[in-house]
Formats: sequence, C-alpha cells, structure tokens
Amino acid sequence: MPLGSAPGRRPPRQTPSQKTGLTTWSGAVERVRSLSNAESIMPEPYVVSETARPSTAPEQGHPPAKPEQAREFTPTERQALYDVINARRDVRNEFLPDPVDPAMLRRVLEAAHAAPSVGFMQPWNFILIRDAARRRAVHAAFEAANAEAEAMFEGEKRSHYAALKLEGILKAPLNIAVTCDRTRGGKVVLGRTHNRDMDLYSTVCAVQNLWLAARAEGLGVGWVSIFRQQDLRNLLDLPENVELVAYLCVGHIDEAFAQPELQARGWRKRLDLDALIMEDRWQGPDGAGG
Amino acid sequence: MPLGSAPGRRPPRQTPSQKTGLTTWSGAVERVRSLSNAESIMPEPYVVSETARPSTAPEQGHPPAKPEQAREFTPTERQALYDVINARRDVRNEFLPDPVDPAMLRRVLEAAHAAPSVGFMQPWNFILIRDAARRRAVHAAFEAANAEAEAMFEGEKRSHYAALKLEGILKAPLNIAVTCDRTRGGKVVLGRTHNRDMDLYSTVCAVQNLWLAARAEGLGVGWVSIFRQQDLRNLLDLPENVELVAYLCVGHIDEAFAQPELQARGWRKRLDLDALIMEDRWQGPDGAGG
Repeated sequence: MPLGSAPGRRPPRQTPSQKTGLTTWSGAVERVRSLSNAESIMPEPYVVSETARPSTAPEQGHPPAKPEQAREFTPTERQALYDVINARRDVRNEFLPDPVDPAMLRRVLEAAHAAPSVGFMQPWNFILIRDAARRRAVHAAFEAANAEAEAMFEGEKRSHYAALKLEGILKAPLNIAVTCDRTRGGKVVLGRTHNRDMDLYSTVCAVQNLWLAARAEGLGVGWVSIFRQQDLRNLLDLPENVELVAYLCVGHIDEAFAQPELQARGWRKRLDLDALIMEDRWQGPDGAGG
Repeated sequence: MPLGSAPGRRPPRQTPSQKTGLTTWSGAVERVRSLSNAESIMPEPYVVSETARPSTAPEQGHPPAKPEQAREFTPTERQALYDVINARRDVRNEFLPDPVDPAMLRRVLEAAHAAPSVGFMQPWNFILIRDAARRRAVHAAFEAANAEAEAMFEGEKRSHYAALKLEGILKAPLNIAVTCDRTRGGKVVLGRTHNRDMDLYSTVCAVQNLWLAARAEGLGVGWVSIFRQQDLRNLLDLPENVELVAYLCVGHIDEAFAQPELQARGWRKRLDLDALIMEDRWQGPDGAGG
C-alpha cells in the first residue's frame, strides 16, 4: 500500500485556501526559492509528505506564516502509535536475511528526516552499510570493544554479560550509521547557543523516528554502542566535523521479545514510572534509588 | 477510549503459552520478584502495556528467555504512525489554556517510559511544572539567555530572529523537564563503557516518544533550549548527578503549522533527503554542503 493512502479513515485534509486564503504549492515553491536565506542549503524545500506542504508562503524575511486547523487523530490511530511504541525492541538476534525493499527503506528514512531539529538544522546523515567486508570490519571493532566492556563486570555478572548477544552487525542485511554534522547551518544556529549538544539530541530524535517507523514496517532495529569511537570513525571515513551518533542493525523480523530483552533475561528490571515523576522541582536524593 | 482497546482492528494477541509454553503473568511476576539482580532497583517490573508483559519468566541469572511471534502492523496502522510523525511540530504559540487530563498525561508519560535505554538504564525523570511562579522564573531565565542568543546574529538575521516566538513557557498550562540521572544503574552500565553519553541519548528517545504520543492526543509540545544551563539547574533543584536534557512546554492545540515553523517563516529550508543518504562510507566533504 503506497505511503499516503489510508482510504476512508482520514478526515479530508483542509487545503491552505480554506483557512489562510493563501497560495498554491507551486506558487509557494517559487516564493521559497526567491527567499534570501543566509542558512539556506538546498535550492528548494524537501517535502516529507503531503501534510508537510507549506500552506503559508514566505513573502520576505518575516513572512505572514500562519498555523492551520490541527489534524486530529482518532482513538484507533492513537492506539496504533502506542502499539508501535510498545512493540519496539532493541533487536540483536532475530534478523532474517531478506533484503529491505528500497521503498520501505525510503519511508523509514523519511520518518527519520521528519524529526525535530534545533534551529531546523537537520544535522543528520544516513550511511547505508551493506558491504560484507565493511560489516566484518565493524564487527571486529565491536569484538575488541566488547572484550574491554566484559572485563568491567565481575563474577556472576560477567558470565551473565558474556552470555548476552549484543549486536546483529553481520546477521542483519543492512546497517545504518546515523551521524551528526556539528557544523551544518553555520557558526550560529538558533537554539544551540546555550547547549552545543542540541544537534546531537536532534539526531537522536531522528533515530527514534526511524526505529518506530521500522517496527511498523516489520523491521527490527538494534543500536550498537559498544565500539571505540575512533575505530568506527576510521571505518566510515568520518570527517572531523561529523560525529557518529548511532550505529544501527536493520532487517526483517518475524519474532520479537514481548518485553525488553535485558528484562526478559533478568539483567535489569523495568522501573516504576510513578517513582520517576516529580512535581515542580527535583524531589528526593536521586529520584529512583540510583 | 481507554488505552489498550481498538476493537476489531488488532490481530488476536498470542498468549505466552501458545509459543513458549510458559507461565502466567502473575507467575512471571513471582519469578521476577525472586531474581537476585545486582542492578535491580524496583521490587517488580513496571508494565508499560499488555504488549510489554513478560511471556518468558527469568528462572535464574541466565533465564531461557525466548522471543515470540512478532506483532504485525497493518498499512492503516503504519499510516497512522507516519501521519503523527509528519504532523508533529515544535509548538511555541498555539497552546490553549485547558488543563491536560491526568489519564491523557499518563499515557504520554508511559510512551516516554517505553523508550529504549542503554543497558535498560531508564535514566529519565519527568518533572511536571505547573506552578505559575516557578514558570515565571523559568521564563525570566529564557529572556536573559535569549538576549544573549539574539546578539549572536547580525543585521537582517537578527531582526528576523527577534520577530520569532521561541517558547510557550507561560502560555502552555504544563511544562515538563525531562532529566537524565548519570549515575542510575551504578558504575558500570551495559553498552555505556565506550560512550558515556548513551544515557543522554536514551533520554532523548524518551522525549521523542513523549512528543509523538502528545501529538496523537491533540497536545502540542515545544522544546525550549535557550537557557543558561545553571539557571535551570538552580530553578529545578537538580542534584549534581542529574542533567537537564529537555525543557518542554505542553498543552492542547487546535491549530498547528503544516510545515516546521522555521521553514514556514523563511528561517531555514527543508534539506533534500537524497543529499543526506550515503552508501557504505562517508562521501563528499560534509554531506550536505555544510
């Protein structure tokens, strides 16, 4: 089923003119093209989906942009979101060898690209790694780092750690490195002056969108963080201004854990949400018993 | 409509015994309770939703945990997820004064708590800020920082910046500070040995889940990052081991921008996704023209 169609379920979308009396999409593109924008990078805006089409066309530096009536979601649509959120897992071993259909992968990357970003910086890139030799080298980098990580644990905990499978680098047919270009958007980025890491956080938002979209498509995703950062930078030829935020293993799954795998395997328990909620200020020494 | 019900749309859920021949939920709780787990914090696992119930009960340090048949999502459910992802906005000015229903807020926080976390660390806390005096103090902290931020821009860009509304701290009836306890889970956390910031990234995943759930519920969310960090730490009484990751303004909306507000207002354009995708290794000097 093509992205964008869900016959009979969505309220008819309001066209721009219904609310704002403004212009057509092509007219909007022309106006956006004509904008002088010091931070502008691409010749015209990329449209994630129909819902992202501008209904209010910038006329100048301070365009009369206006919000529209907000799309409402039905209880059934909300439930679909909650079901995806709760079915999402960090997958290590359930990957099937089947390749990921390009159209499906595109939908998943579009979802990532629709993430929020500080100052609309969109600092992310997506490196699709299928080459077997490169994935073997990445796996070797994991093995080296994992030996160091295992040595951090003692006794029973170390043997428990050693028994856990923590990556699907070679089993998954596709790996995706999600990176953050710390220099994108120039020296000054709106919203980043007082927290330089907002661009990294924006990139993580893209990762979470990608993860949820993948799960809804029947794809598992596993985030591998057990690497010496420099090993991966070398293997992916990352320039100095680019940081690796997430190394993801991606592939079809037909099985998944009903709870987080580390919980199912007795590594660590789910915390009580009530113990994590506070009113107006921090309460207690550290909120959840450290 | 209560969370969990979507009559007639979901495939019947597999009960644990169908696949694993294992135990009932209450039996699972008993076994989990009986676990000795060095990192264990709460007396029993918190259950996010029916789908999160453990079907494989840990018997010991290395339980025979097994995955189940994976929940499949229909094209209609996938479309609901994509529509929420594409309708989500960073809201500054569209907040309505109506209070947020506690049950709705609970569903949104449960979605955040269902986020992935490194080593199942769950390092987040949620500080719900409704007190008007405290929000006025937070707003004053924003004003001070924003004057510094505005001064970073020059000429036309500065006047454009000055014309943007960048927060809804007082207009939104609820603010939520999402924090990260850097010490939760003890000295050694699985997956964090080689990247100490994985706990911050986990917390951002919770923020993105919260943001999407809120949008599906008809709530707008705005992430305010224009603060001197120490000002907010003082106002929220954060202990040294706790970092503020996101300060969110939350409230009902009946209007929303059809595209990111900074795009609608001509501040910055949507990048072309094709320019952000690479194969096997970094290509080009910086991937999207800096």
